[in-house]
Amino acid sequence: MVRCAEIQSAIRVGANSFLFTQYKYLAAFTAVFAVVIFLFLGSVHRFSTESQPCQYTRGKACKPALANAVFSTIAFLLGAATSVASGFLGMRIATAANARTTVEARRGIGPAFAAAFRSGAVMGFLLASLGLLVLYVAIKVFGLYYGDDWEGLYESITGYGLGGSSMALFGRVGGGIYTKAADVGADLVGKVERNIPEDDPRNPAVIADNVGDNVGDIAGMGSDLFGSYAESTCAALFVASISSFGADHNFAAVSYPLLISSAGLIVCLITTLFATDLYRVKTVDGVAPALKLQLLISTVLMTVGVLVVTFTALPHEFTMFDFGEVKRVKNWHLFFCVTIGLWAGLAIGFTTEYFTSNAYSPVRDVADSCRTGAATNVIFGLALGYKSVIVPVFAIAVSIYVSFTLASIYGIAVAALGMLSTVATGLAIDAYGPISDNAGGIAEMAGMSHRIRQRTDALDAAGNTTAAIGKGFAIGSAALVSLALFGAFVSRAGMAVINVLNPKVFVGLVVGAMLPYWFSAMTMKSVGSAALKMVEEVRRQFAAIPGLMEGRATPDYASCVRISTDASLREMMPPGALVLLAPLVAGTFFGVQTLAGLLAGALVSGVQVAISASNSGGAWDNAKKYIEAGASDHAKALGPKGSDAHKAAVIGDTIGDPLKDTSGPSLNILIKLMAVESLVFAPFFAAHGGLIFK
Amino acid sequence: MVRCAEIQSAIRVGANSFLFTQYKYLAAFTAVFAVVIFLFLGSVHRFSTESQPCQYTRGKACKPALANAVFSTIAFLLGAATSVASGFLGMRIATAANARTTVEARRGIGPAFAAAFRSGAVMGFLLASLGLLVLYVAIKVFGLYYGDDWEGLYESITGYGLGGSSMALFGRVGGGIYTKAADVGADLVGKVERNIPEDDPRNPAVIADNVGDNVGDIAGMGSDLFGSYAESTCAALFVASISSFGADHNFAAVSYPLLISSAGLIVCLITTLFATDLYRVKTVDGVAPALKLQLLISTVLMTVGVLVVTFTALPHEFTMFDFGEVKRVKNWHLFFCVTIGLWAGLAIGFTTEYFTSNAYSPVRDVADSCRTGAATNVIFGLALGYKSVIVPVFAIAVSIYVSFTLASIYGIAVAALGMLSTVATGLAIDAYGPISDNAGGIAEMAGMSHRIRQRTDALDAAGNTTAAIGKGFAIGSAALVSLALFGAFVSRAGMAVINVLNPKVFVGLVVGAMLPYWFSAMTMKSVGSAALKMVEEVRRQFAAIPGLMEGRATPDYASCVRISTDASLREMMPPGALVLLAPLVAGTFFGVQTLAGLLAGALVSGVQVAISASNSGGAWDNAKKYIEAGASDHAKALGPKGSDAHKAAVIGDTIGDPLKDTSGPSLNILIKLMAVESLVFAPFFAAHGGLIFK
Repeated sequence: MVRCAEIQSAIRVGANSFLFTQYKYLAAFTAVFAVVIFLFLGSVHRFSTESQPCQYTRGKACKPALANAVFSTIAFLLGAATSVASGFLGMRIATAANARTTVEARRGIGPAFAAAFRSGAVMGFLLASLGLLVLYVAIKVFGLYYGDDWEGLYESITGYGLGGSSMALFGRVGGGIYTKAADVGADLVGKVERNIPEDDPRNPAVIADNVGDNVGDIAGMGSDLFGSYAESTCAALFVASISSFGADHNFAAVSYPLLISSAGLIVCLITTLFATDLYRVKTVDGVAPALKLQLLISTVLMTVGVLVVTFTALPHEFTMFDFGEVKRVKNWHLFFCVTIGLWAGLAIGFTTEYFTSNAYSPVRDVADSCRTGAATNVIFGLALGYKSVIVPVFAIAVSIYVSFTLASIYGIAVAALGMLSTVATGLAIDAYGPISDNAGGIAEMAGMSHRIRQRTDALDAAGNTTAAIGKGFAIGSAALVSLALFGAFVSRAGMAVINVLNPKVFVGLVVGAMLPYWFSAMTMKSVGSAALKMVEEVRRQFAAIPGLMEGRATPDYASCVRISTDASLREMMPPGALVLLAPLVAGTFFGVQTLAGLLAGALVSGVQVAISASNSGGAWDNAKKYIEAGASDHAKALGPKGSDAHKAAVIGDTIGDPLKDTSGPSLNILIKLMAVESLVFAPFFAAHGGLIFK
Repeated sequence: MVRCAEIQSAIRVGANSFLFTQYKYLAAFTAVFAVVIFLFLGSVHRFSTESQPCQYTRGKACKPALANAVFSTIAFLLGAATSVASGFLGMRIATAANARTTVEARRGIGPAFAAAFRSGAVMGFLLASLGLLVLYVAIKVFGLYYGDDWEGLYESITGYGLGGSSMALFGRVGGGIYTKAADVGADLVGKVERNIPEDDPRNPAVIADNVGDNVGDIAGMGSDLFGSYAESTCAALFVASISSFGADHNFAAVSYPLLISSAGLIVCLITTLFATDLYRVKTVDGVAPALKLQLLISTVLMTVGVLVVTFTALPHEFTMFDFGEVKRVKNWHLFFCVTIGLWAGLAIGFTTEYFTSNAYSPVRDVADSCRTGAATNVIFGLALGYKSVIVPVFAIAVSIYVSFTLASIYGIAVAALGMLSTVATGLAIDAYGPISDNAGGIAEMAGMSHRIRQRTDALDAAGNTTAAIGKGFAIGSAALVSLALFGAFVSRAGMAVINVLNPKVFVGLVVGAMLPYWFSAMTMKSVGSAALKMVEEVRRQFAAIPGLMEGRATPDYASCVRISTDASLREMMPPGALVLLAPLVAGTFFGVQTLAGLLAGALVSGVQVAISASNSGGAWDNAKKYIEAGASDHAKALGPKGSDAHKAAVIGDTIGDPLKDTSGPSLNILIKLMAVESLVFAPFFAAHGGLIFK
């Protein structure tokens, strides 16, 4: 018990210190970028303090562009601060929950599950409600200045999404590099060369690995989903403000996105009770069904919630801005938009589960291919990832078609919100994974009995699949969110048509489709290089510290923590710069048409890369766990740990690490962030953009 | 010598028998698909035999749709037959050249190089001139019926491209699965488990492996490039026919694409002399520069050739069809269009060389990462592939922008022809690779001296890079070709705008971007499964045949040949069906807007997947060769054969096999074939398509 507390404290101190160092860098970046936003947006009308004619409401005066520059900058700072707070609080909760889960695991699988899951749920609620609260307050406070100029108000509010997402980018990329450098480095020497178990305290990289779970999978994921949430809300609010809701100054109707999210919070609260109180998990086999049931229950209940909100908050009929046209929409249209997003999320979640859980044939085939070595394992795993893209893409396509047809870009935005409305549940089952992983690490390091380790391993295996489901939600909603932002950008920049047959657009499209590859090249290489350094350090310590292998000496954990920290902070810069500069360069030099093409290209290509990377990685991880667990005759024939097939599986797992935890999930943020940045800078690009392709 | 002839004959018989079996399937497919074409196109005006008003030339009568159905079907059959002939003749040349190269290798590296390269050149010229000749004759013969109805004439001719490309699809996919199942299977048991050299006659899969080089890399590549060439010519001819060239009945101007290709043949003939006669290769180090020089010389000479053709064949000024508009174009505009395609091809070629040759740092970094095992090798290799996409995509983007802006879709088509004008040289340096590979195999199997094997290995290592360059050309030109076909399809279907903001289009875009993944999932899994079977058969033979390991017994080569043959014929069907059915389903049920989105999505996403897959694979292969050759201190530290780093490199090489030789190159055909099929069926889709999204 004392040992548990010590290890927990070491993990927390490591995570704290990494995040604070990272925040120093982020503070500098935020300050610089805030100035950029202010200067670009202020220059739209040359920093004039005079009122301007409104863009959409004819014959009315709106606040000056300078005011929008000021408030967009403030909203950006607010979003950044909220995102950082979300990540940090999530990490605190997770690092408190890990040891608790270990301790509960002594009592059985049920209590351990409840401890891990409850902590995940706390984190989910905290993030979702914090995001909602800050946004609501900001709208109210900004409204004091803007009065009835809702165009300007909700345009400025979009800065909130940009702030949230830019922090999420660095959180995901930095955290992802940190955790995977440590994980890959620890595994390559510990498991492969030295044949010691995962999380063995003799492994010098073990603390860095456990810290990584918290700063990458928890803080990074928290910021990411918070970003999606903030962005889709901002996109919906902006489009609503230039539609009849805005013209009629119907605050309840404009606030529809916020109401959907609030209903989601209540639904998720009820849903959680099913996992922790109404239906208790007793055995290992009960964990995965309990988590699946969470998804199903929250979706069903939310459908009712959407129905209630839609028919109380919205007028029966209204009009929506549709790229210069006006579209008549009925309230039940919006009900369908939200609901299709919600159910598409469920479809994506279940598909992801099918492809990454070792209860089904895809992962078992991958495990089976380990018989002929690592090469066939990798070939099968890559093929699995590619194949797993099909159903989610069709689900996204159907959602887009239905919601776009019913309510134009607003339909897309609320479909995204529908998918995200169960985000609290999603985060709960997602955060549950790394917490269990950490709990297992603590049990191993504290030298607790084999039985406890088995229980935490079982929780962790389910956690791998739920993590993949969480990533599926994140990418699915990111696709819808960025399409909504894309539509809002196009509206804001005053375009009515993005013609693929225009060479400016097509060039943007093909280059945009390339960006996810460029970005992944950077992040994968970063993980690879950092892992190489980690391997050398761990090898050095095993060679240089006498008695380390025999457990008589303590390794130098701090030097491994330092390698991960340095690598992650240094390596997060170039991919971050790529994502932030691409829209600025495209918009400023090549104009809004090329930028629109770029966004569409990055979106349609990034979705595929992100889903396939996440699922290949998840499948390799669980194929390895399948062989290790040896629960069936087939699995026993491939195992045990240390067999040739198992070694091949470990190689696949290691390759999957950067794919599923660094480059894959960061791509969500790439597509969202480029879109929200374009939206915020749209007035500038429309006024002064396209220096080369004028 | 006698042994060489025996082995050569075994390879030739194997390749012959595979191709003939494959052709039986293809004949059945071709017959069915010809009927489909006839029925779909005939039904446009309900099989009426009356003349119709022309679509583009107002107030004139054109031939009935039924005639177009008949002639399109004939053109399709001609294209299919020419494609099959190209592949078959290429295979015959290559299987004659392999043993000759082995024999020449006894005299030194120079004569061996000349033998391999000359054979490649013969193949290149044969294919390029055959394609040109058949097309020219078809135009003349069809013209007897069509008279001055050039719209109908050149519309029917597009069937030629469809025929060529659909055969190429099966050639690439079937050949790719054949060769890689054999190669992976042979390597996994032979090199990894049994520690016997590559191409060792004791390995039962060795003949299948060598047959595979000829049916996959030679026959498949030949059909692929022939397809690109036929399609871009058809696209250019079609657009010219509905522009002022057609209206003025200026045959020389309409034939501009054919003239460019003819000039290319002459240029390549001169260029070849530089490699074989004017500048002789004497040492191993001279091989790669000689091949690079070929590219450079052909590009420079061709620029002059384009200049001559452009200013003699074209009027000073003319107009081009531009999606319903008319665009004024000058002859020097077209000169720039062709030239930019030509030089973009060179840029792609050199970039590919940089990323896949072990003379530069990217491959050396990948080799270096083998120090920490297969996992880091794979991570670095994937990152390298992703990164290698950047420059080619920018090169393609610039070509598209310039040529599209100058001469609309016709500009794109001639830019593609510019890139392909040096196709004879491209094929020569590409085919050179598998010929050398086979030569090495024959040397090994015939038990020739180690020195000879070293020479053929050196030729082969250069061949790996040139194969990657060839694939770079193939994908770059495929991107331009399919954009040209896309434009022709859009024109033919009577659309003027493809608006990304139309939900029908966007849905097509996102699903289209998914198709390359679906397709790759199928082909990779096919190779994986076939390789598993091969491994089991090879293991069985080693266990069951006494004295095989000691070289006292002959393995049963035929059973391995049978496994590859069966797998390839069975597994080529589903991906083939996907590619051929996707446009038919999209066009028939969802209409031309969704189909246009689908084509654009598949194009922009497929380019990235194809380039990264080819280059990752090429880099892994050469990283392994780098370690094996041990030419530098760095390489020596990683080697020798059998070291841990080398074993890790072999795993990477094996993973790269299906990526670089099956799924990657097949994607070129995916994007081209979907576009040309849409073009051929455009009249039907425009008349009757969109049953669901009416």
